[in-house]
Amino acid sequence: MQYFDSDYMEGAHPLILERLVKTNMEKTSGYGTDAYCESAKKKIRKACGCPEAEIHFMVGGTQTNATVITAMLRPYEGVIAAATGHINVHEAGAVEAGGHKVLALPSHEGKLDAAEADRYIADFYSDASWDHMVAPGMVYISHPTEYGTLYRLDELEALSSVCRKHHIPLFLDGARLGYGLAAHGTDVTLEAIASLCDIFYIGGTKVGALFGEAVVIPRPGFVKQFNTIIKQRGVLLAKGRLLGLQFDTLFTDGLYLKIARHGIEMADRIAACLEKKGYRFYAVPQSNQLFVVLENSRLSALSGHVSFGIWEKADADHTVVRIATSWATREEDVEELLSLL
Amino acid sequence: MQYFDSDYMEGAHPLILERLVKTNMEKTSGYGTDAYCESAKKKIRKACGCPEAEIHFMVGGTQTNATVITAMLRPYEGVIAAATGHINVHEAGAVEAGGHKVLALPSHEGKLDAAEADRYIADFYSDASWDHMVAPGMVYISHPTEYGTLYRLDELEALSSVCRKHHIPLFLDGARLGYGLAAHGTDVTLEAIASLCDIFYIGGTKVGALFGEAVVIPRPGFVKQFNTIIKQRGVLLAKGRLLGLQFDTLFTDGLYLKIARHGIEMADRIAACLEKKGYRFYAVPQSNQLFVVLENSRLSALSGHVSFGIWEKADADHTVVRIATSWATREEDVEELLSLL
Amino acid sequence: MQYFDSDYMEGAHPLILERLVKTNMEKTSGYGTDAYCESAKKKIRKACGCPEAEIHFMVGGTQTNATVITAMLRPYEGVIAAATGHINVHEAGAVEAGGHKVLALPSHEGKLDAAEADRYIADFYSDASWDHMVAPGMVYISHPTEYGTLYRLDELEALSSVCRKHHIPLFLDGARLGYGLAAHGTDVTLEAIASLCDIFYIGGTKVGALFGEAVVIPRPGFVKQFNTIIKQRGVLLAKGRLLGLQFDTLFTDGLYLKIARHGIEMADRIAACLEKKGYRFYAVPQSNQLFVVLENSRLSALSGHVSFGIWEKADADHTVVRIATSWATREEDVEELLSLL
Amino acid sequence: MQYFDSDYMEGAHPLILERLVKTNMEKTSGYGTDAYCESAKKKIRKACGCPEAEIHFMVGGTQTNATVITAMLRPYEGVIAAATGHINVHEAGAVEAGGHKVLALPSHEGKLDAAEADRYIADFYSDASWDHMVAPGMVYISHPTEYGTLYRLDELEALSSVCRKHHIPLFLDGARLGYGLAAHGTDVTLEAIASLCDIFYIGGTKVGALFGEAVVIPRPGFVKQFNTIIKQRGVLLAKGRLLGLQFDTLFTDGLYLKIARHGIEMADRIAACLEKKGYRFYAVPQSNQLFVVLENSRLSALSGHVSFGIWEKADADHTVVRIATSWATREEDVEELLSLL
Repeated sequence: MQYFDSDYMEGAHPLILERLVKTNMEKTSGYGTDAYCESAKKKIRKACGCPEAEIHFMVGGTQTNATVITAMLRPYEGVIAAATGHINVHEAGAVEAGGHKVLALPSHEGKLDAAEADRYIADFYSDASWDHMVAPGMVYISHPTEYGTLYRLDELEALSSVCRKHHIPLFLDGARLGYGLAAHGTDVTLEAIASLCDIFYIGGTKVGALFGEAVVIPRPGFVKQFNTIIKQRGVLLAKGRLLGLQFDTLFTDGLYLKIARHGIEMADRIAACLEKKGYRFYAVPQSNQLFVVLENSRLSALSGHVSFGIWEKADADHTVVRIATSWATREEDVEELLSLL
Repeated sequence: MQYFDSDYMEGAHPLILERLVKTNMEKTSGYGTDAYCESAKKKIRKACGCPEAEIHFMVGGTQTNATVITAMLRPYEGVIAAATGHINVHEAGAVEAGGHKVLALPSHEGKLDAAEADRYIADFYSDASWDHMVAPGMVYISHPTEYGTLYRLDELEALSSVCRKHHIPLFLDGARLGYGLAAHGTDVTLEAIASLCDIFYIGGTKVGALFGEAVVIPRPGFVKQFNTIIKQRGVLLAKGRLLGLQFDTLFTDGLYLKIARHGIEMADRIAACLEKKGYRFYAVPQSNQLFVVLENSRLSALSGHVSFGIWEKADADHTVVRIATSWATREEDVEELLSLL
Repeated sequence: MQYFDSDYMEGAHPLILERLVKTNMEKTSGYGTDAYCESAKKKIRKACGCPEAEIHFMVGGTQTNATVITAMLRPYEGVIAAATGHINVHEAGAVEAGGHKVLALPSHEGKLDAAEADRYIADFYSDASWDHMVAPGMVYISHPTEYGTLYRLDELEALSSVCRKHHIPLFLDGARLGYGLAAHGTDVTLEAIASLCDIFYIGGTKVGALFGEAVVIPRPGFVKQFNTIIKQRGVLLAKGRLLGLQFDTLFTDGLYLKIARHGIEMADRIAACLEKKGYRFYAVPQSNQLFVVLENSRLSALSGHVSFGIWEKADADHTVVRIATSWATREEDVEELLSLL
Repeated sequence: MQYFDSDYMEGAHPLILERLVKTNMEKTSGYGTDAYCESAKKKIRKACGCPEAEIHFMVGGTQTNATVITAMLRPYEGVIAAATGHINVHEAGAVEAGGHKVLALPSHEGKLDAAEADRYIADFYSDASWDHMVAPGMVYISHPTEYGTLYRLDELEALSSVCRKHHIPLFLDGARLGYGLAAHGTDVTLEAIASLCDIFYIGGTKVGALFGEAVVIPRPGFVKQFNTIIKQRGVLLAKGRLLGLQFDTLFTDGLYLKIARHGIEMADRIAACLEKKGYRFYAVPQSNQLFVVLENSRLSALSGHVSFGIWEKADADHTVVRIATSWATREEDVEELLSLL
């Protein structure tokens, strides 16, 4: 039986576990005030080309999205996102529970279009009753997107320009950022993201860590009293050093990108094979998640041999499934998958 | 200069003012515990054919919508509404500020389709990850809708059936209910609404009152401790008797429907004339609000002579305007409007 | 039977009703954009000595408190108030429903002590784990207080200094402000309040209006996008002119203070008589609300003849009752009350 | 240098790390649906004597408290807690951010008194305006308390009776439950807690785990749709198996109690020594946290040699410090501490 359901099925990269074991009985102060966090922050700042950046570690994606959005918005503001965005669909209404509307714009294979966002904001303020409506207070994107697709650098630049023109922050959810940065042919770098976004995070949970997301705020102080908001949302880990140590490991000797690249290679191999065999992709394969349209009969036949993420109904007879690889995917498992397909 | 911008441009029906003046120096207890409220409730119960109904008076529409929705939903639930619904567009995110997502379904000239709502709920629970998503916890409709259109009785029955099948309440926003009930050709009565909805309100602000909405809960106790929620939302009027007295007047001798009918007649006269002259309606004219597509040049020419509600851009050269009549619209004003158009 | 339960048992001052009747069929634009609101704002600005002040009209006290507090605080902040403050006790948790903690300090007959507030804030920031706690983000007081007592000018100045020293706003709930300003011997004026507070409101509901509170922001723009927050909280009255017209009347020819003075005279007469007869006051009588400790047997004997506000149990045998006068209290009713006591 | 600041300075018990390493590359489904979680739940159910109990794993204490409280309360309800309770002081207003008031009652060395809670609830409903106030909707206690003290069984029984009498749930925060159960002389068992509380949690973070709290709901289904609420609050760990595996280990062969007992023994040894030397305790020492009043000069002299938790100012010259032991405290460190004191 092969499992390609998601990219969070295994534990952590062995180097991380090794260090967890080695440092286990050390005593450190709590809540991220320890030396491991400090060291990790330094390395992340360097990788981002932002020597001043403020960095906060959180445990998971949904909590990070909700905490960042709560911290950035004023009560009368909402967050622009693609209709398919994770915050709009798969976070159980966390943004709304924090009091804010998700302003859903059309999704283009998971991506938000800068021109559409610009027009939306311009139209909003040209409506005579705009002050009876939810003001667009920030833009949320993810990279890779919910459908594994990637922004090109010029697309990110355009989104950033729109945000700066309208004086609202750009927030990039990088829960799978490693796979985005390691993808073949991408022209988007971590430095570019840090220069174009006002706040973003580097996902650890799906890229080698047991758990953990590193929120980067290129301009320190941009979010006032963020620490208290993090504590209030229950997102401040007592043993914060666990997060620091994991990110310190991931950002030592380029481990983060290196292991992400492996996940990408596994995905590319699968994608190439599927393409050759004539499978239909639901979104163009670009990173470690492949969305494929399968006949339901085919899906049934495969069950018991391979497990996918069941994404959505395509039509009465077809289902969109997700095939996810990761830093932990083994070549022999890919081979078996390909022989099954 | 003629004003047809909205149906809340004047004060109250003279009979209401007269009684306000007459009872002004009476002393009554506060917060709706007075005899006028009691009397009004009795008359509304009778008009609804619900002798047991629980009734609460509030001041305005947005606060009523938000308070009802907050009171009905559990934290993990959202409210289904047409994408054009007032709560989704023109209430500044009040529902989200209360912690809940508006689950927007397609609007059919402002109306929600029962079959689509049914399919949405069924699909929701057939999604393997439904418990990571916002559960549909109630259905919101308005009658008349945001575009002045009306549900037929069979449409309301279908929506009610869908809600009961899925064990979620049906909430009807009746901010303009009088005009809906008084419309020509409608087969929807107050009794029907009371039997099909779990909670609804009878709008006073736009139908003869200075302000006020009467929330009706046909099955008393359906909303637990509603009084405290109303107080908490700041929606409990200190001099509650002002609301009681207004609704008592509106529900004496059929005043509510009688004055609504006048508004409808004025609207019908305008609609007939516009139709004859070949104006294009944005939504089929059914109640006291007419949505007409005007050339921008025509709109400019009319400015200074007549004022409409500017609704939305239809395209580069056309604008959707709202022409609203009310209980207070004078025949001579309609004549002048028609001569101008 | 005499009723002295509260100061919101009657309707409005006759001049207000008269103007409501006279202007009833005028057409005005909605949501407070009309000429009556504009005129009222001008008069209020003048009375406050703040020619630039931003003014917003709301309907009632609880909604005004919650809306102002929501608008002023960031998510990590709470509001300092006396433990007996209305927002801490009698608003059903409206502040908390908006996401903020009430930081309750000791009440001194309803008043907050500036030195205690100063020490609280200083101690807060000297606590090593202050960023795990709710930061004091504003100070709330009411004048008169929940127990009818009044701040002296030097007390208000001290509170204002504390707030400015710590860079947090001072908010004064003036639901009964008229009675505070009209009280004998007070040295607090409307101009003083406007110069010492960052935001405050002038209560109409209890001082001559049918309903209505006028929020004054001496420095315009101090609260960003307040209009949308007001709309979002359901607090924006459709027929806003009703509020404008009432305040315009109250602030014409000094009506507001004149009618408040009547309420004060009635209260003073009662207080003097009670004092002479040896009644025990629960709080020093200073404005239109008198808090008296009555034996339960006495209270029973009076029931059927006179009705008070039942405030709280003093001990097993005594009850604290509130005797409230208002602009509408008639001399003959006071005489009857005094003859009964 | 010795550190006795808190009980979360080290990593996890070695057995936990060992299993994390051993199972690291296994593939499991996400969000707690894996076999490790299932196994841990079974063992916890058995330890609680609740074969039917519903169990949910969360990451940390603040998020667990806020999520449970949000899930249990209706909008008009608040939570009763001792004024010193963690939720009232050290969680940055997380409960209020969720919309609910903490109803603070007097703390008796951290404990809530059942009779006082009973009287509070009875008084609440005997107040004529109770429906304008925040209804007591649940009771929160922690065991051990914020000051390391312990409830006796009869005290817990009394609290449980009060809750059942008033039909509100009893919630026990067991972030340090192990140390409470392992304390010398306690008559409170896990089974007793499970039979007396409606919801409680077993803390892992401070008792041997890297992180993790196990929420136990003795009557399954008591909280409706809890999973979605957990997801919405961002509290559902993607790699849920990490929690399952840790609790599975802690509840195998009595490890949880065994290691807690070690922490208790270390604390007892310190307490006995301090007592002998005449140190003043701020609260009676009962579990793994000792609160001692130190002269500031003494505290300064010790700095550089030993680090405590700085709790609060006792007076101008004294400070309350916390000395915390844990499963990880080494005997030689205790010896060094004692020789320093």
